[in-house]
Amino acid sequence: MDFISRHVGPNQPEEHEMLSALGYDSVEALVDTAMPAGIKATQPINLPAPLSEQQAQERLRELAGKNVVLKAFYGQGFSSTITPPVIRRGVVEDAGWYTAYTPYQPEISQGRLEALLNFQTMVQDLTGLPVSNASLLDEASAAGEAIGLMSRAVKKGRRVLLDARLHPQVIAVASERARAIDLEVEVADLTQGVVGEDLVGVVIAYPGTEGDIFDPRPIIEAIHERGGLAAVDADILALTLLESPGELGADIAIGTTQRFGVPLFYGGPHAAYMAVTDKLKRQMPGRLVGVSVDAEGYPAYRLALQTREQHIRRERATSNICTAQALLAVTASMYAVYHGPQGLVEIARAVHGRAASFAASISASGATVKHENFFDTVAVEVAGRAEEIKRSLAERGYLVRTIGADTVVVSFGEDTEDEDLRALVEAFGGSVTAGGERLPAGLARTTEFLTHETFNTIHSETQMMRYIRSLGDKDLALDRTMIPLGSCTMKLNPTAGLEAITWPGFANVHPFTPDEYTEGWRELIAELSDWLVELTGYAAVSVQPNSGATGELAGLLAIRRYHLSNGEAERDVCLIPASAHGTNAASATLANLRVAVVKTAPDGSIDLADLDAKLEQHAGRVAAIMVTYPSTHGVYEDTVQTVAEKVHAAGGQVYIDGANMNALAGIGRPGDFGGDVSHLNLHKTFTIPHGGGGPGVGPIGVAEHLVPFLPADPQVSWESAAQDAPAEGGVPISSTTYGSAGVLPISWAYIAMSGAEGLKKATQSAVLTANYLAHELKDSFPVLYTGNEGLVGHECILDLNGIEKESGVSATDVAKRLVDYGFHAPTLAFPVAGTLMVEPTESEDLGELQRFIEAMRSIRAEIDEIASGKVEYEKSVIHNAPYTAYSVTREQWPYEFTREQAAYPVDGLIHAKYFPPVRRIDEAYGDRNLVCACPPPEAFDIEPEAVEEIDVVSTEENKK
Amino acid sequence: MDFISRHVGPNQPEEHEMLSALGYDSVEALVDTAMPAGIKATQPINLPAPLSEQQAQERLRELAGKNVVLKAFYGQGFSSTITPPVIRRGVVEDAGWYTAYTPYQPEISQGRLEALLNFQTMVQDLTGLPVSNASLLDEASAAGEAIGLMSRAVKKGRRVLLDARLHPQVIAVASERARAIDLEVEVADLTQGVVGEDLVGVVIAYPGTEGDIFDPRPIIEAIHERGGLAAVDADILALTLLESPGELGADIAIGTTQRFGVPLFYGGPHAAYMAVTDKLKRQMPGRLVGVSVDAEGYPAYRLALQTREQHIRRERATSNICTAQALLAVTASMYAVYHGPQGLVEIARAVHGRAASFAASISASGATVKHENFFDTVAVEVAGRAEEIKRSLAERGYLVRTIGADTVVVSFGEDTEDEDLRALVEAFGGSVTAGGERLPAGLARTTEFLTHETFNTIHSETQMMRYIRSLGDKDLALDRTMIPLGSCTMKLNPTAGLEAITWPGFANVHPFTPDEYTEGWRELIAELSDWLVELTGYAAVSVQPNSGATGELAGLLAIRRYHLSNGEAERDVCLIPASAHGTNAASATLANLRVAVVKTAPDGSIDLADLDAKLEQHAGRVAAIMVTYPSTHGVYEDTVQTVAEKVHAAGGQVYIDGANMNALAGIGRPGDFGGDVSHLNLHKTFTIPHGGGGPGVGPIGVAEHLVPFLPADPQVSWESAAQDAPAEGGVPISSTTYGSAGVLPISWAYIAMSGAEGLKKATQSAVLTANYLAHELKDSFPVLYTGNEGLVGHECILDLNGIEKESGVSATDVAKRLVDYGFHAPTLAFPVAGTLMVEPTESEDLGELQRFIEAMRSIRAEIDEIASGKVEYEKSVIHNAPYTAYSVTREQWPYEFTREQAAYPVDGLIHAKYFPPVRRIDEAYGDRNLVCACPPPEAFDIEPEAVEEIDVVSTEENKK
Repeated sequence: MDFISRHVGPNQPEEHEMLSALGYDSVEALVDTAMPAGIKATQPINLPAPLSEQQAQERLRELAGKNVVLKAFYGQGFSSTITPPVIRRGVVEDAGWYTAYTPYQPEISQGRLEALLNFQTMVQDLTGLPVSNASLLDEASAAGEAIGLMSRAVKKGRRVLLDARLHPQVIAVASERARAIDLEVEVADLTQGVVGEDLVGVVIAYPGTEGDIFDPRPIIEAIHERGGLAAVDADILALTLLESPGELGADIAIGTTQRFGVPLFYGGPHAAYMAVTDKLKRQMPGRLVGVSVDAEGYPAYRLALQTREQHIRRERATSNICTAQALLAVTASMYAVYHGPQGLVEIARAVHGRAASFAASISASGATVKHENFFDTVAVEVAGRAEEIKRSLAERGYLVRTIGADTVVVSFGEDTEDEDLRALVEAFGGSVTAGGERLPAGLARTTEFLTHETFNTIHSETQMMRYIRSLGDKDLALDRTMIPLGSCTMKLNPTAGLEAITWPGFANVHPFTPDEYTEGWRELIAELSDWLVELTGYAAVSVQPNSGATGELAGLLAIRRYHLSNGEAERDVCLIPASAHGTNAASATLANLRVAVVKTAPDGSIDLADLDAKLEQHAGRVAAIMVTYPSTHGVYEDTVQTVAEKVHAAGGQVYIDGANMNALAGIGRPGDFGGDVSHLNLHKTFTIPHGGGGPGVGPIGVAEHLVPFLPADPQVSWESAAQDAPAEGGVPISSTTYGSAGVLPISWAYIAMSGAEGLKKATQSAVLTANYLAHELKDSFPVLYTGNEGLVGHECILDLNGIEKESGVSATDVAKRLVDYGFHAPTLAFPVAGTLMVEPTESEDLGELQRFIEAMRSIRAEIDEIASGKVEYEKSVIHNAPYTAYSVTREQWPYEFTREQAAYPVDGLIHAKYFPPVRRIDEAYGDRNLVCACPPPEAFDIEPEAVEEIDVVSTEENKK
Repeated sequence: MDFISRHVGPNQPEEHEMLSALGYDSVEALVDTAMPAGIKATQPINLPAPLSEQQAQERLRELAGKNVVLKAFYGQGFSSTITPPVIRRGVVEDAGWYTAYTPYQPEISQGRLEALLNFQTMVQDLTGLPVSNASLLDEASAAGEAIGLMSRAVKKGRRVLLDARLHPQVIAVASERARAIDLEVEVADLTQGVVGEDLVGVVIAYPGTEGDIFDPRPIIEAIHERGGLAAVDADILALTLLESPGELGADIAIGTTQRFGVPLFYGGPHAAYMAVTDKLKRQMPGRLVGVSVDAEGYPAYRLALQTREQHIRRERATSNICTAQALLAVTASMYAVYHGPQGLVEIARAVHGRAASFAASISASGATVKHENFFDTVAVEVAGRAEEIKRSLAERGYLVRTIGADTVVVSFGEDTEDEDLRALVEAFGGSVTAGGERLPAGLARTTEFLTHETFNTIHSETQMMRYIRSLGDKDLALDRTMIPLGSCTMKLNPTAGLEAITWPGFANVHPFTPDEYTEGWRELIAELSDWLVELTGYAAVSVQPNSGATGELAGLLAIRRYHLSNGEAERDVCLIPASAHGTNAASATLANLRVAVVKTAPDGSIDLADLDAKLEQHAGRVAAIMVTYPSTHGVYEDTVQTVAEKVHAAGGQVYIDGANMNALAGIGRPGDFGGDVSHLNLHKTFTIPHGGGGPGVGPIGVAEHLVPFLPADPQVSWESAAQDAPAEGGVPISSTTYGSAGVLPISWAYIAMSGAEGLKKATQSAVLTANYLAHELKDSFPVLYTGNEGLVGHECILDLNGIEKESGVSATDVAKRLVDYGFHAPTLAFPVAGTLMVEPTESEDLGELQRFIEAMRSIRAEIDEIASGKVEYEKSVIHNAPYTAYSVTREQWPYEFTREQAAYPVDGLIHAKYFPPVRRIDEAYGDRNLVCACPPPEAFDIEPEAVEEIDVVSTEENKK
């Protein structure tokens, strides 16, 4: 059977049954009716004939084989590390972990929330700062986020200092992020102290890119004296030996956790981190896991302070971050759990020992080591021989870094063997001797870290295997149930593509490996880019943005710089429809655009009259409009071309958000119907798994005139980054040229195995299943918006507002009750309050759709009992949902409904029942009593009544 | 941290705590006390220094890289196949599946029992015979088992006919198995009909090894007329197009299911099958899954007719089969579920189409195709050019088979691509043309198969992913809990070794690939064999036996043939202690040895007086004694050397069963303390996972004088197999030279990463944890046997007999009740009725041991309530255990104890609770109402009261 028939859930008879219910003869007829004529691609999409799974894997092996994997001693933010096999298999390669969604529904996400809390605890402990988020996208953008945070927190000040010792890509990306929000950037030699005023802050490297370590305290004091903030970009492993940034007085710490067991992946994905002082926590970008309590008073985890985030606060959010790097953060956290504090110190000592030995050995042979103090990285002065040494080592299978013609930098990772050290030393004409410690005495770490039980008890492989499984089992992911999340496209992630990402030929390639050794990677990326160009109808694609939100920012920056290059600096208004995802607005803010909201017409489409009014109001200042197509209402609107024409006529650019590309792929191309730029979410339409909230990949496609403004190479542009004026052309947006390259084989495989016809089939099927669900559910729950002939696109919105008025039952109640039926809730309250947005995707078969329909109808019947007055809302089975296994087993049963009604409302559950590990979580409690580190074990032993006694690390009233 | 510290559960403080409780200063002191001085190895074990996980994987990659993977068109029982990635990842690479134990405890094994029932249903449907077992070890030994079955069923008759068209290795192995039980073997050209009388039966190839198909009906009729039975060795994929053996009148069908998605694995493991007529079902060897009902009357699966099996019936068993090929049978069954009947037919048609096209193409170019009819295999007459063609194709990456100098055989698999066909045709000087159907018209399949819903609804990857997970989740495996199974050593299976087995460089190598292309495999096997030699103290090791039971048979055959070579044919008595595992006796029977039981002394050791008596009684006829060391009582006996001396003095050989090698590895060597031969269970001590009941690997080590009698190459010996008299030297025992080569990297990695010191540490820790458990539990449950200073070895026996008398609570009750505490039961009723044998292994940490101790003490308290008269036995929480989630949730609660007492007897369960999917299973019902195929879906819908209405495919009173 061909791949696409495996990928698409409904088979022929099922498709027929659904079409019959809808009254159509064919999916073509259905889609033709649902989709306005102008949207359909006018000519066939031209992709290679589909490969079988086997053929695709053969080709992927060939591509992996074309990469020459050099053992990496390059450093610059990417270190060789050893992923413990038990973690690779249990997390990175386990569907329960990688197919999970972002933990917005905490009751079915306790496992990954615990793992992310471990991550936060690890970062907090190592950085010595009390609040860490649950990961950022990469080190360079984390530096950008830190600058944004400083700017928001300090408010006055227009300058930011960047330590010249930061990695080049960090300087490149961070300075452009700073300039985008109108800050002046100075790349400074901080050994000379802080110069000048008007500073929002400084970002200090610890250690520097050449490996040198200097004491950041004088700089931190100096910036504080000037009213600015200090961020320290710290090597997470070095922090096991060096005193923590928090202890040294820093306000913010950032960095990457890649070297905690995450493969090099040719640059990404990996989890960056950020930790801040208590004072700054409400300014923190990204997700934050916190501890709250459930309805019975037991401790329970959930995302904290979401009011900071883009999906709630929109243009006033702390960042546009949506997808983070959850799967990689989980991996890094498991690495820390497995090694524990002592194991991490041993690894750090071993790494430092290798570096020290290397330095001593080559010094003994007459070479000049540039810096007295270092942790893992040794810069050697080689007087014109840098390239020669690099090349000769490459021939022996080693990758080192050169800086200019005279410096070779050798950076040690966890996996260095004796023979490696020997080869490296020999390349400098020496022989191996031992070396003394080269850490600066005054910065030796004195503070404890990772003292929590979790980091000190799971030491054997058996324990780790079980810990990973026990956490995974608490959660509902795609491997157990459909996740009918509107706008998030939780479709199949084909194993044939996923298997490839951990192959050494892909996983172990350092991002700064010279091109001659990375032919396979670059060929794969070029093919994928070409295919995305063909699918979107644009002129070129960049895969650099490592999340959808980053893609949006990259797209908007391209637009902004296009206008600048045309001398139209005054174009700074971004029109955003009221129905847009909050990320749009937040991204516009990061691009320094002002957001103007365009109203929604009663039928859910863009209010054209209001659009005219806004274009009039902002005449000459319109930079762009951001529209999602099909709209976030899940309908193929017929006005998108009109909208595009109007905006173009006003001199603006049209940004078509590709979040809903799953309703277009293989059928319509945004570049054809008016778009100038789009980002795609490879983790949605193109089957990269959601990973529990990342990795994401957000390539952008742009029309011809925007091609010069595509993201620039963060490596190439770093020198220009040090200049005052913005460079010409595009700006870098991620740490590495190809962003989250490591997961691109997944999308490559999906497209290669589907071909144009397969993608079209998938899209048609997505529209079919959505319309079938809408049809079957509309008598129970009103469907809010529809298009032609009452059809929806690939998702539908169920309106609970009327029901809530009638019965008190909210969309949230329904979402929580669905847990008892074994389902992840649909998207809640987006894009319309009081609704559930349902997107079944093409991968769900009729049986699973019917199971969902049965559940929703059963819930409707439960609602009717309240509406009819038979049952009180507060006492209803819905309002008290969900129910843990323990709650329905306890002798005391405080409810009027039965245990069976609570846990087994439909018969099918008898043979396949998921119990959430906690009852409904009190979200407000957690924000009022903010705890963002692992609670002590006693918290889980105590009786619920005593839960208020949890040792609260940090509490503050949530003032929002 | 080094590997062994990850492998061993208790860390230093935990080890110290346990030693303190036992009153020892060090594990050395403990083991020195427990183990008699004479057992300890006199000199250090000499193994290479341990590698890290990373180093071991590097070396494994290097070895895999030394294999040149030729695309296999060789056939001869091994076909290229495509493992669907979703099955590879979900089953073969998933700890929940591969770490599970044999489903003797059916309540926690419903998932894999369902998968095995699917396997049986698949085999029954395709073979057209009503009863299939749940797999045999390989095709060749399956033929041997078929002959054994015929012999038992027919009773009279001394001759067996083997179709000369069978694969060489089938002839080689089956004829030796037949000769071992004193049958005369005739390898016959069956196209000439059946000649002669006195026949127990015939084994017919369908198709033949050259691909030719002829109608077996005349042979079947002829053998039936003579009172014999007909077995058909059929290609499972061909059966989708060819009429089934059952329909053609066969009594038995055998074959391999390798080509249903199981990699070539350089020969194994893969699952062979056997199906029989209803009349023969009680003679069936191997495991049989059947349908029964649970305590609430719901359908439930369990192993059926266990009274046939070695562990109950011992020397009167239908076979010695213990470990089968469960994991591979599950894989093959999932392949069938995923493709369904239509998909399998499509694959078969594609394979046949390739073969037909190949035949037509080369015929057109003048080559001579040897047979008119074929399915997937084409024999070509090439007049002296066979080797040349083979070599030239090998250079292009293809493996074909030659027979003599004049025949090339090309056999097509599922993965043939156009370019492959082109290359193959070109090698014969032709160009590709289409070919007509070449199946014999009279044998076209007319009967339906795989009509059950399971084979017709799970068609998408999403469905398959969820089906695999839903089944896996029903079961308790090592990834969720300790499995404290005495004698079965359920220790950690290290991921670093497991990851390697699916690497293409290992997995895709055909077993009959010429040596020059398999350097990596042979180097790995040679190293492993050398290490096993060093660890056992023998002169040589053979890894050919693909299960422990096969190892036993191989060892006994070596002994038997040694005696024969010495002219001592009369030595046919095998002494077996009463405490021995049933497999020992069953293996002796297969080797045609008579079993004489030696009594157990009151202290559990061998009764030396009775041994003397038996040696006296069988003077001059003693072939061997089989002793397990440490004994199956888990004690290091101090008499083993005396026993060995006595048996040697009587002219017998000493077989030391290596089942308990986990108490010896790195410390004592059976070859040093009296053994002449031992088998090892790589799937126990050497960390190959149990796979839910296989694969197993049972290498044998032998002393110098037995080296000539090690298993012979089944390839080399096939011509001699056709002779009348037994060949000199050893006999082949498995289909391929290296048996289950595919999983050997796991044991290789374990030993390579442990080194001698690590293995010793593991053994010491196993003794420590067992003694700690015995110490902590002995006040609750009497420990039956102990050795020096009251110490046990690596396991201990808890005696429930007194408790049962006092309270009615049986060992079975305790075993079932442990499920509610989240544990797999210890070994039940072996080696002593009414006991539980507990083996924690070295991999369990103190926390998990304490969890078990808490559970056992809690159960003891539950027992005390019965013993004290407070609770009636029939109404007790133990007697009614285990409890499903549904049972504790239903409104009706018929018990006097509470739901909480039933499901949450200890607090720790609140945060980590496993619910079995069924209540206690009625074993007798299932044997009275034998159903060994998937029950109809309605069976699961109906109310329990109506369960008797299940459509019973085949019922018969169990007369045992």
